[in-house]
Amino acid sequence: MSITQLAKDLNLSKSTVSRALNDYPDVSFETRERVQKRAEEIGYIPNPVAQRLKQGKSNAVGVVLPPPLDNGAFIEPFYSTMLGSLVIELEKSGLQLLVTTQKTSASDDDVVSYRKMFQRGLVDALLILRTHSNDPRVEFALQHNFPFVTYGRTEKETKHTWVDVDHEQAIYSAVIRQVGRGHRQIAFISTKSRYNYAQLRTEGYVQALKDSGIPFYPRWLVESGLNIDDGYRTALKLLKTEPRPTSIVCTTDDIAIGTMTACREFGLVPGKDIAIMGYGNSAACEHTSPPLTSIEAFPKQLGEKIGKFFTERLDGNTSDALQHVQSTKIIERDSDPVLT
Amino acid sequence: MSITQLAKDLNLSKSTVSRALNDYPDVSFETRERVQKRAEEIGYIPNPVAQRLKQGKSNAVGVVLPPPLDNGAFIEPFYSTMLGSLVIELEKSGLQLLVTTQKTSASDDDVVSYRKMFQRGLVDALLILRTHSNDPRVEFALQHNFPFVTYGRTEKETKHTWVDVDHEQAIYSAVIRQVGRGHRQIAFISTKSRYNYAQLRTEGYVQALKDSGIPFYPRWLVESGLNIDDGYRTALKLLKTEPRPTSIVCTTDDIAIGTMTACREFGLVPGKDIAIMGYGNSAACEHTSPPLTSIEAFPKQLGEKIGKFFTERLDGNTSDALQHVQSTKIIERDSDPVLT
Repeated sequence: MSITQLAKDLNLSKSTVSRALNDYPDVSFETRERVQKRAEEIGYIPNPVAQRLKQGKSNAVGVVLPPPLDNGAFIEPFYSTMLGSLVIELEKSGLQLLVTTQKTSASDDDVVSYRKMFQRGLVDALLILRTHSNDPRVEFALQHNFPFVTYGRTEKETKHTWVDVDHEQAIYSAVIRQVGRGHRQIAFISTKSRYNYAQLRTEGYVQALKDSGIPFYPRWLVESGLNIDDGYRTALKLLKTEPRPTSIVCTTDDIAIGTMTACREFGLVPGKDIAIMGYGNSAACEHTSPPLTSIEAFPKQLGEKIGKFFTERLDGNTSDALQHVQSTKIIERDSDPVLT
Repeated sequence: MSITQLAKDLNLSKSTVSRALNDYPDVSFETRERVQKRAEEIGYIPNPVAQRLKQGKSNAVGVVLPPPLDNGAFIEPFYSTMLGSLVIELEKSGLQLLVTTQKTSASDDDVVSYRKMFQRGLVDALLILRTHSNDPRVEFALQHNFPFVTYGRTEKETKHTWVDVDHEQAIYSAVIRQVGRGHRQIAFISTKSRYNYAQLRTEGYVQALKDSGIPFYPRWLVESGLNIDDGYRTALKLLKTEPRPTSIVCTTDDIAIGTMTACREFGLVPGKDIAIMGYGNSAACEHTSPPLTSIEAFPKQLGEKIGKFFTERLDGNTSDALQHVQSTKIIERDSDPVLT
C-alpha cells in the first residue's frame, strides 16, 4: 500500500501522513499514534528502510563501549562526539545506533557482547572501537561474515573497513612544533600501549625526535590513565625527572589539564615556564588558563565517515573494504610558548 | 543441567567453567568460547539471570537519550556519569543497559523509540530521562503496565518509580550562600523551562530571593543552552544589564565556564570582581582559573539508586512506586568571594 492510499484510508493529507510516519513533532501526538498504528496494521513500510526491513533486518548498528571509565563516566568525550555525528549520519539512511557496554570483568576486546547482539538479531552491523593490533572482535566478525566497521586499524587492516586518525602524524607534528619553538627536552604522556593508536602515537614521538637529531630519553615517555586526575598524578612524577622536560605533549586534553595543575604545584606557570600541548581540542581548551594548544582530530568527521561506510556496506554498494585516514590539525593557543 | 555436569561434560574444573561463563579474561578466549558455546547448546542458564531468561526476558534495561547535543556530543557529562554507575549496578543483577537516541526530528519526550524497544522485546524495563511535567513517555509506560523508572518527577509522581535531585533546594542554597557573602544583585542562568527540573531550580532561586527580602528582577533570570559557548553568549548579554549583577549562579558548570570567559571580556576577574557558581561539580571545576564553586548532585549515587530500583521492580520484590530525592552539596572553591 502506498502513502497515497494510506492517506486516503485515514482521511488525512499525504504530507501529514508522511510527517506523522517520520515523527515530526508538529503533527499532534494523537495523529502520529493513529497513523503509525494504522501503518503497522496494514504493513506499510516507508522507503529507504523498506528494502532492509523486508529482509528481516533490524535497521540498527550496534556498538559495545568499553566498561564505564575510572572516573565513572559511561563514555569518554571524544567518543561521545564521534557517536553523536554517527547517529545523525545513520539517521539519514533510516538506521539507528544501539549502544551497550562491555562487562566490567571483560577485557575491552571481548567478543561476548558483540556476539549477543549478533545472535539475537538486534543489529545489522557492528562498530568496533579502539582496536588492538590483533583483535578477536575483528576475527569474530570476519569469521561470521558480519558487516562491521572498526575505529582503528588492525594487523588485518587490508581485509576490513575502518576509519582511523593519522595518530603517528598527529604526535609527530606536535613534537616537530615543539622543536621549532626551541625545545629539546620534550616529554610525551601516552596511554596504555596495548592499543593500536597508542603505539602509533608513540612511534610519531620517537620518529620526530629522531628526525630532529634529539636523543630519545625513556623516562620522558610515560603512560597515564585517560582522565584529569590521572594526568595530574603522572605529571607530578614526570616533573621530578632530572633534567626536567621544558615541553610536555599529552595524548589527551584531560591529561594536559591535569598536567597544568601539576606544573603550578611545582611553581611552573604553564605557557610561561613550561610548554604543554593537549590532544582532542575539547571545549575546555579555550577556557583553561592559559588556553591550551591542542590537536584537532575531527571526531565529528570521523563519525560521519563511519556512518557513510555503514550505509555503503548495508546497501551492498560495494564489497571492497573501505578505508579512511583522518588528518589532524594543530590548534595554536597560549600554552606552549617559544623557549626563552 | 548444573554447572557441575557442564564441567564434567567439558572436562574442565567447575571454577574454570564458572569463570568462563562470566567472561573472566583470565580464562583463555578459546576456552570461554568453547564453554559458552556448549552452555548454549545444552541450554544451561546461570543464576540469577535464570529466572528472568526462562520467562523470555531480555535481561536488559533500555534508555532513549535525547538526540545528539548542539555541540555534537552523544551524551552530556552528567548523564554519562549517571549511566556509568547505572551500568555497574545493573551488572550486579545480570542486567545490561541498552542505549539508543531520539530521532533529531522527534521531541525529547517522544514515545516512538521507547515503543520500538518495548514491542521488539529488546528490553524488560525502561529508563525515562529528564521528564516533562506532563510526559507522554510516562503515560505510555503506565498504560502498558511496563516496568520503568524516571529520572525526574512528573505531575503523576505519586504513581510511578522515580529518582530525582532536590533541584529546588540546590539552587535555593546557592542563592542563600551568595546572600550570606554580601550579594544582593544575584542573577541565575537557567535553561529551557519546559523541563521539570528547570522549573524546580527557578522556584528555588525565586524563593531564596523572597526569603532574603531581595526583590526579584526578571532580567537577571535568563535561559541558556547547555554548553560552554551557550553560557558565554548568554553571559555577554547578562553582563550588559544595568545594574550589573555582582553574583551569577549558573545551572551547569559548562555555562559557568563560559560565563567566566565572558566576565574577563568585560574586564571583570572571576572570583575577585564578580562571583560565579556552577552546578554539577564536574572534573573541570578544580582546573578552571579560579577553581569553580559548584553544586555536587551525586550522579553516581543517582545511577546506583536507579539500578537498585530496577532490580527491585524486575525481581518483583515490590509493587509500590519507589521514590528517592537526592540532596545536593555545595563544593566551595575560589570563584565566589565575599562582596567587598
